[in-house]
Amino acid sequence: MSETKAKFLEVYSVLKSELLNDPAFEFTDDSRQWVERMLDYNVPGGKLNRGLSVVDSYKLLQGRQLTDDEVFLACALGWCIEWLQAYFLVLDDIMDNSHTRRGQPCWFRVPKVGMIAANDGVILRNQIPRILKNHFKGKPYYVDLLDLFNEVEFQTASGQMIDLITTLEGEKDLNKYNLDRHRRIVQYKTAYYSFYLPVASAIVMFGENLDKHVDVKNILIDMGIYFQVQDDFLDCFGDPAFIGKIGTDIEDFKCSWLVVKALDRCNDEQKKSLYENYGKEDPSCIVKVKELYKEINLEGVFEEYERKSYEKLCKSIEAHPSEGIQGILKSFLGKIYKRQK
Amino acid sequence: MSETKAKFLEVYSVLKSELLNDPAFEFTDDSRQWVERMLDYNVPGGKLNRGLSVVDSYKLLQGRQLTDDEVFLACALGWCIEWLQAYFLVLDDIMDNSHTRRGQPCWFRVPKVGMIAANDGVILRNQIPRILKNHFKGKPYYVDLLDLFNEVEFQTASGQMIDLITTLEGEKDLNKYNLDRHRRIVQYKTAYYSFYLPVASAIVMFGENLDKHVDVKNILIDMGIYFQVQDDFLDCFGDPAFIGKIGTDIEDFKCSWLVVKALDRCNDEQKKSLYENYGKEDPSCIVKVKELYKEINLEGVFEEYERKSYEKLCKSIEAHPSEGIQGILKSFLGKIYKRQK
Repeated sequence: MSETKAKFLEVYSVLKSELLNDPAFEFTDDSRQWVERMLDYNVPGGKLNRGLSVVDSYKLLQGRQLTDDEVFLACALGWCIEWLQAYFLVLDDIMDNSHTRRGQPCWFRVPKVGMIAANDGVILRNQIPRILKNHFKGKPYYVDLLDLFNEVEFQTASGQMIDLITTLEGEKDLNKYNLDRHRRIVQYKTAYYSFYLPVASAIVMFGENLDKHVDVKNILIDMGIYFQVQDDFLDCFGDPAFIGKIGTDIEDFKCSWLVVKALDRCNDEQKKSLYENYGKEDPSCIVKVKELYKEINLEGVFEEYERKSYEKLCKSIEAHPSEGIQGILKSFLGKIYKRQK
Repeated sequence: MSETKAKFLEVYSVLKSELLNDPAFEFTDDSRQWVERMLDYNVPGGKLNRGLSVVDSYKLLQGRQLTDDEVFLACALGWCIEWLQAYFLVLDDIMDNSHTRRGQPCWFRVPKVGMIAANDGVILRNQIPRILKNHFKGKPYYVDLLDLFNEVEFQTASGQMIDLITTLEGEKDLNKYNLDRHRRIVQYKTAYYSFYLPVASAIVMFGENLDKHVDVKNILIDMGIYFQVQDDFLDCFGDPAFIGKIGTDIEDFKCSWLVVKALDRCNDEQKKSLYENYGKEDPSCIVKVKELYKEINLEGVFEEYERKSYEKLCKSIEAHPSEGIQGILKSFLGKIYKRQK
């Protein structure tokens, strides 16, 4: 385990203990135990990339070793993003009626939890401003942090909304699917909180105004969209053994980049087949869609997209005046370019 | 309709229109229509007492007629509380698997909505900071409003959590029920957002620091607890025709003030009957519990509680140095004392 990650996990214990003794609420013993179990089950079990990248980004902005205090605060901010993610996942799993998450049953499927999970999601969300208040109240940038987290949460929930009403059961209509809708869903649902928020948090903590960093935001959003297109590609063409899950976008009638590109490139006959077979549980329908994707060379289309996206992102990054910010953006891009999982 | 209420409803249309054109998100036509329908269905259909009392409270604090701008801002704050309430109700109805709310099917039961309702609840919640940002960003008390709404939402969700795990299916155990647990549930789940928040919002907008008003907070919390005890009483002893619904606290195994008081006053034989019959759907069990309540004269106990609460609240209110605040508190108390619904 890296040194940063070990420190990051230490900070989790501190934050949890503060939350379990929050003076704004009188816990009963059973509710304190409930929250502790709920946190341990849902918050720290992911890859922690988003949270850790706040610490890395802040270090690159400072361009020097951080003090212990600075490391603690950057970790606390990083954990706020992990808390946000946990909140979304707990609620998403209820809405999607999912079974497993991070290799264990979804929280709402744990015995005795059930629909209490919806309120637990709300609790997770409400703990973010508690953490921010405990550690950032009084800092000149405190209100900017509140605004930032509020805006990104709003954007994420709005992206999730388009996704949900687009995929709405009983309204399966491929006519609704196009590149613009795909871009809106992934930009709002994923890119803001996964790519923009970690860097934006670090910039705010560094004392700079986000309004001056619209270019950084645009690059990170483009990177987030590229990341999600990779995700859509790997869902169909990736190696399940390597990714750790079997893709289900085709049978789930997802507004995937692949189906959008396919609709663009199909002739009338192929389009008819796509309309007939997309979003069906029947394995033979899934096979037909995959064969169609191969016929119209979506793998090649993706490779071309990946190459062009990478080139464009590199150019944008190199045009940025700050070395620290270039470093942050290059590090993000390096982690995702040509990823296989 | 009162003049204030007409103005209040006008402000709803303005806020809604701003939210439907929020530049932080690129609505598709279908998502804009979805949000509009969701708002009209869930936000303005209640009695609006909480929201309207922000305007009344602010007027009493100023001690004069308000300017148009002041009325608008006080209404906007009032609507934030109504939005908060809508968010809680949409999620509570999912968790309780309820059927109707405010005389119409619960939002999640509306065709095509289903579990999307959980995300709609999140959207409602996220619109509060959008409203605050649109109208209060730049005011010296902006950050205090954000802190206030965050803290009260946290307290409400925490109270809801104790309620949920106390009433947990399969763990029906009257041993857990006592006056202290009842007080915590109602104080956190109801009193903070229904009684404290409207007045606290008005005080913040009036430019005062809430830390100087701990006495006002304590009085409003006590009033909120008294209000909920009335609610518990009316659930069993009120006139269903007058209240507009049939109480189900006994069969739902609720931690009601009545069952808590009953546990205090029962002899061993009565306690045995209570343990056997509380929380059962069987109508004969419900009848037995109600008879037991009458045997131990819970009606008289409640009357005594109501009288003493009223006396104590009046004394606390009269001890307050500010006439404006006395006026606010007396108005709240006058609306609920000896209410029959």
